[in-house]
Amino acid sequence: MKFVSFRSAATTRIGVLDGDAVIDLNAVRPDIPADLTEALASGADLVAAGEAALASDAPRIAASGLKLAPVVPRPGKIVCLGLNYFDHAKEGGREKPDYPWFFLRGATSLIAADEPGIRPRVSEKLDYEAELAVVIGRSGRHVPVERALEHVFGYACFNDISVRDYQKRTPQWTIGKNFDGTGAFGPHLVTADEVPPGAAGLRIQCRLNGEVMQDANTASMIWGVAETIAILTECLTLEPGDVIVMGTPAGVGFARNPPVWMRDGDRVEVEIDGIGLLATAIRDEQEPAR
Amino acid sequence: MKFVSFRSAATTRIGVLDGDAVIDLNAVRPDIPADLTEALASGADLVAAGEAALASDAPRIAASGLKLAPVVPRPGKIVCLGLNYFDHAKEGGREKPDYPWFFLRGATSLIAADEPGIRPRVSEKLDYEAELAVVIGRSGRHVPVERALEHVFGYACFNDISVRDYQKRTPQWTIGKNFDGTGAFGPHLVTADEVPPGAAGLRIQCRLNGEVMQDANTASMIWGVAETIAILTECLTLEPGDVIVMGTPAGVGFARNPPVWMRDGDRVEVEIDGIGLLATAIRDEQEPAR
Repeated sequence: MKFVSFRSAATTRIGVLDGDAVIDLNAVRPDIPADLTEALASGADLVAAGEAALASDAPRIAASGLKLAPVVPRPGKIVCLGLNYFDHAKEGGREKPDYPWFFLRGATSLIAADEPGIRPRVSEKLDYEAELAVVIGRSGRHVPVERALEHVFGYACFNDISVRDYQKRTPQWTIGKNFDGTGAFGPHLVTADEVPPGAAGLRIQCRLNGEVMQDANTASMIWGVAETIAILTECLTLEPGDVIVMGTPAGVGFARNPPVWMRDGDRVEVEIDGIGLLATAIRDEQEPAR
Repeated sequence: MKFVSFRSAATTRIGVLDGDAVIDLNAVRPDIPADLTEALASGADLVAAGEAALASDAPRIAASGLKLAPVVPRPGKIVCLGLNYFDHAKEGGREKPDYPWFFLRGATSLIAADEPGIRPRVSEKLDYEAELAVVIGRSGRHVPVERALEHVFGYACFNDISVRDYQKRTPQWTIGKNFDGTGAFGPHLVTADEVPPGAAGLRIQCRLNGEVMQDANTASMIWGVAETIAILTECLTLEPGDVIVMGTPAGVGFARNPPVWMRDGDRVEVEIDGIGLLATAIRDEQEPAR
């Protein structure tokens, strides 16, 4: 089953995909919170609710007529892994890590599938990173690896767009990963039952203006989804709606010779087999109204 | 004026301090959201509401009878600065940075003033860091330094308790700053009008079991509050309820010879003149129920 979040006035709502159409789940089930984080935290059985909606004659809305939100519009935490594909660590001149390089994104960096990625005024070094995103469905601390996947609600595509000069101004990458308009997340979420365990063994690609820039398989991740959940929950509580962004394979722009930076007018796509295709148009940041 | 957040059943509410007592602001003004982040985002004039409450005969609750929450229970972002006091950079063997070392905390790491700090089962290297916390009141992007303080709602004490071995397992400090039970934040917030601009020139201390471990002045911060807001909003939007944690001065446990680690039964205090005193009892993590 596939879920989206979409914008409706100043708020967001949850939709269930039915082919190219969307059913407004909150219209069918007004008892379910309209924010996906709150809906997951409420303990509502979203899959059962979605199945009932699909079996009903609830109105179908053309997906093309909706304004999408990031799959999880306001995650409590967005935990990202750096260097989780060895070939990407190598292209950056790094050894194989012996522990994940974790950093966090804030929700202000997120954009939906139909929103532009923003090349900020202060930098020209805007790079793409195709990644698998994991959406947590159930709270957990000290989760053993063999039970970790029970905590996953679903998966989505993520473009961990990075402002490389800011990322490398200090050893802490965080600021270069937190610019507004750089965390592309969508277009939809696929529930865990529809993909292999841990979403392993799926082809993952990034294409820039149609040219394949990254082409790998999620089986090549150093730490898989279950291992990552076990490692993280040794330290902290993962909550419903939290997102883990699983790192990117080789082929990023900064490691190319000459480097490739994204510019206004570019179209960048992240595609993961069985999960989806996330297309982002790159636009220059506009001058703010003062 | 001083505000607290306190727990009430499964939710939190906003209180206004009246000496040693608290007025439940949401009882007086049910139109104001009970979560401080939402209340600030709503644009409600909390200071005017607080003044009206203080002038009224609204019931006073003994503060000792309340269960506090972190000052902002669920900030959208918690942005922390590393190495923002040169003497602390030096004690860690670092040069004076030329850009702030930013990292993020997640809200799951936060604890209130009357909640224990947790020494996790996986580490014995638990360290204190006395810090000034800034609570953002008004959204901003590309905020010029001369207007930056208009975006500050108030200030509070923060203990950026760090799990040093996890902090240093990779160059990304994030995981060592995100253990459950390590971000002590409170007990109350002081509105910006009650302290000098940018909360500069205030004595900041950390005491462990009564012994002074850190003793400095916020005037020694490399980047002050206004500069930090200007630097951050070059990159991202600061939202109401976001928190900036301004870094710690020299005297932390890991830099001592021999190192000092906090243990079960310790009492650690962060005090900032004119802002408050935040006391935290350290407890060993309990075995989870499986």
